[in-house]
Amino acid sequence: MANEWATFGADLHLELRGTRLRAGLMDALREAVRSGRLEAGTRLPSSRSLAADLGMARNTVADAYAELVAEGWLTARQGSGTRVARRAEPRDEPRRAGAGRTGAGRTGAGRTAAGRTGAGRAEGGRAGAGRTGAGRTGPPPAPAPARPASADPPTLSLPRPARPAHNLKAGTPDLASFPRAEWLKAYRRALTAAPNEAFGYGDPRGRVELRTVLAEYLARARGVYVRPERIVVCAGFVHGLMLMGQVLRNRGVRDVAVESYGLGLHAGLLTGAGLGTPVLPFDERGTRVEELAAGGAGPLGSAGAVLMTAAHQFPLGGALPPDRRAAVVDWARATGGFVLEDDYDGEFRYDRQPVGALQGLDPERVVYLGTASKSLAPGLRLAWMVLPESLVDEVAAAKGAVDWVSSAPDQLAFAEFLASGAYDRHVRAMRLRYRRRRDQLVAAVAEHSPETRVSGIAAGLHAVLALPPGTEQATLRAAAWNGLAVQGVNQFRRPTVPETLDGLVVGYATPPDSAWHSALEALRRILP
Amino acid sequence: MANEWATFGADLHLELRGTRLRAGLMDALREAVRSGRLEAGTRLPSSRSLAADLGMARNTVADAYAELVAEGWLTARQGSGTRVARRAEPRDEPRRAGAGRTGAGRTGAGRTAAGRTGAGRAEGGRAGAGRTGAGRTGPPPAPAPARPASADPPTLSLPRPARPAHNLKAGTPDLASFPRAEWLKAYRRALTAAPNEAFGYGDPRGRVELRTVLAEYLARARGVYVRPERIVVCAGFVHGLMLMGQVLRNRGVRDVAVESYGLGLHAGLLTGAGLGTPVLPFDERGTRVEELAAGGAGPLGSAGAVLMTAAHQFPLGGALPPDRRAAVVDWARATGGFVLEDDYDGEFRYDRQPVGALQGLDPERVVYLGTASKSLAPGLRLAWMVLPESLVDEVAAAKGAVDWVSSAPDQLAFAEFLASGAYDRHVRAMRLRYRRRRDQLVAAVAEHSPETRVSGIAAGLHAVLALPPGTEQATLRAAAWNGLAVQGVNQFRRPTVPETLDGLVVGYATPPDSAWHSALEALRRILP
Repeated sequence: MANEWATFGADLHLELRGTRLRAGLMDALREAVRSGRLEAGTRLPSSRSLAADLGMARNTVADAYAELVAEGWLTARQGSGTRVARRAEPRDEPRRAGAGRTGAGRTGAGRTAAGRTGAGRAEGGRAGAGRTGAGRTGPPPAPAPARPASADPPTLSLPRPARPAHNLKAGTPDLASFPRAEWLKAYRRALTAAPNEAFGYGDPRGRVELRTVLAEYLARARGVYVRPERIVVCAGFVHGLMLMGQVLRNRGVRDVAVESYGLGLHAGLLTGAGLGTPVLPFDERGTRVEELAAGGAGPLGSAGAVLMTAAHQFPLGGALPPDRRAAVVDWARATGGFVLEDDYDGEFRYDRQPVGALQGLDPERVVYLGTASKSLAPGLRLAWMVLPESLVDEVAAAKGAVDWVSSAPDQLAFAEFLASGAYDRHVRAMRLRYRRRRDQLVAAVAEHSPETRVSGIAAGLHAVLALPPGTEQATLRAAAWNGLAVQGVNQFRRPTVPETLDGLVVGYATPPDSAWHSALEALRRILP
Repeated sequence: MANEWATFGADLHLELRGTRLRAGLMDALREAVRSGRLEAGTRLPSSRSLAADLGMARNTVADAYAELVAEGWLTARQGSGTRVARRAEPRDEPRRAGAGRTGAGRTGAGRTAAGRTGAGRAEGGRAGAGRTGAGRTGPPPAPAPARPASADPPTLSLPRPARPAHNLKAGTPDLASFPRAEWLKAYRRALTAAPNEAFGYGDPRGRVELRTVLAEYLARARGVYVRPERIVVCAGFVHGLMLMGQVLRNRGVRDVAVESYGLGLHAGLLTGAGLGTPVLPFDERGTRVEELAAGGAGPLGSAGAVLMTAAHQFPLGGALPPDRRAAVVDWARATGGFVLEDDYDGEFRYDRQPVGALQGLDPERVVYLGTASKSLAPGLRLAWMVLPESLVDEVAAAKGAVDWVSSAPDQLAFAEFLASGAYDRHVRAMRLRYRRRRDQLVAAVAEHSPETRVSGIAAGLHAVLALPPGTEQATLRAAAWNGLAVQGVNQFRRPTVPETLDGLVVGYATPPDSAWHSALEALRRILP
């Protein structure tokens, strides 16, 4: 029952904040009774249990229960708990009944159970919240909530999840900070200067103007060993990984090892290409790459490549220690394998110099994959691969006979954006802004929940907040109830990895500046 | 021998024009002798035969032979024909020998056979052309062209093909006419108005703003039955076809029938997706779609879809006649198959109203694929699919969990470009321009080669010039020799289709206005 409740709460995604928590909970409960999702006689979870599930203070729930009992929606009896009150149901006139209940200041929308769409229901929730805010101690509606007794049962589909009020999901930069004016300037200059042939079918590796500027930038900023001929521009990391999966499979590679934690999507792309994805174990120092060499007859023994977030493990946040960086490259050298380096947020390191790309250790065995999705915006679909010489032709051929994918004007605009220094300025500005947010996050956690350890904060756009064992799911439900979109570390755990860590992955770069403090406040509320 | 020669000419892609033809031919012959590709004693083709192969007047070739005999490169004896002269070869000092031959005004580049790169060789060709232009009746070089006698044989790789001077290959619009200012205006307005979320990960179907405007446009301009929810934006026709191949394969479709003539690339994408590509026969009325229904136990009997250029067959240029349009849709309805309609240049029809899209006949059985590659520019990588309702989710899922491919700002810019009317204006302007070129092409052919039939001229960006049986290859070699890039119909013939047509596919939209007349002149020279 508690689970069912929590699910209901999670699905509703009400936008509840601060003092409005109790009102919102009451409204959601009323709506659940009204719509029939909570049938008469149903026993509700204890206030303590629901409070834990929803990340609210117990008193908030107890007060809401008490008020709803006073309003006649619920009944409370010692020994029998809190239940949904039984009511006589009016017949045949649901609309009139609804109309009768609707006051002057209340719209009819969302007040009739039958035929209510998901969207209408969400509206009803909000309209209700407004109402209870104004006069929520008023008399309970009477007669009781209507369920029409027509031949067709009322639609009882779950409400469509509304957009959460706060977003701390990792993986997206602050989109409001996209440098529109600077980008537009670069685009205009690039479009004006572009040779006519740029509008035709192009080199599958991408525009040479971009590859030339990128080579200079990657060498300088990420320690990548690179020449323009080694670069293949692609439409995002996912596109690059798809191309690599195809090329490796064509070469007869059977397995690509992956880290214990990462995006399921990435492993899925590899399996989609016909590759196995054996999992490298993880310890407190990071990914145990030494298991590759020790793989022997096990699944790791047949890995022909390994996918790694070496500079900043996603999502756990550590940098691979130097001995392991060396070890994974040594493994690749010894076996003819490849390291696929997913350098998704390498530009963002706060407290010291960035950890250089692994690729510099051996450009012939490491495939470097970088992207503008974190440093600029995912919507641009701009990314790049720096390839060992032996792979350039195969990857280019996998991309196509010509460039079927990447827009030439966009590539030229990005080249101009890089060459003009606008990219460096933007990254620098965002680094300052994200570091400030990271510091505020660390401070808020230290103040409000000092026992919560924050890790992975040296770099990147997200941090991991450790949770007491076994509390991750409940915390996520509480987050949903609070209108906070956030993920748990176990959502990134490979299925075969034992569940040993509980924690939240907090993407502090995601909200715009205007929403950051309320998002942080929502996070604070759900912390232990 | 004639073949070998012609190949050599085709590979060299010299930029030869008007009065420079003889000088260029002489220089190419000298270079071939010098590099050792034409060995001493080799008999050259007759001047008549080489002239036919290269599309030159016979006198031009005869004069060039005579001059080279006078210069000592060739010998000519009655009954023995024209041969490469025998010369003593200097030993061990190839460089010094070359230096000795180099006059004050001649650079040493390209004069030494050994170690010459392809690029160097091309340069040598151009440098030579300049030289002979100034003093081509000068004395022959002596001693004879050097081949070093070191242990390593000299590199005899073919020269890298230079860019042809004239381009009439089909498939590309006039890139110089890309409406930069109008596009930039649309891009600026779109980027300024874009909501922040547009810079994030988006709907795999593409931006709703674009799908909404596209739906309106396609209904109006192409008679497509469409709602925005049925559209999936993609990065070009190739991307769309890849997605369809994947979806059809997942549905258990084994074969997708293709037309007798078409792009090998497209059939290759389908076979790459694991699909067979049985070929529909062709007659004077177009593709014999009725063979689908009659397929029975043959390869066409297991086709689950057919790929068609119904409005304007590529490359042959006809519109599928109404009874066959109906028949292919009837086949799809009866069998649950799909028609993949490649509407690559549907906007360009000159003499009457455009032929509406086949899709309108049955939106649940026809997948409509459109593109901005011909109407605007391939470099934008913007295309769209209008899907039967039953396929929308599968195609969107094949594209990705989110939009991994198409740039959101580009999509918004294109939406703005469409909505503002700039697209209609551009298409209208280009239609006038292309029609003028088409008329000039038809007139030039009628004047210079009245027996040559021009077909496929009612629409599109290319025409087919019928050639006398068996002369296509020679004509293509002549085109190459004249620095004209153009393709023959047999380059688009599916391998299993018997060779019954000879012709040139002339993409008259391809050159910029400034190069159009000289391209037409080059074409005129090679016509029978």
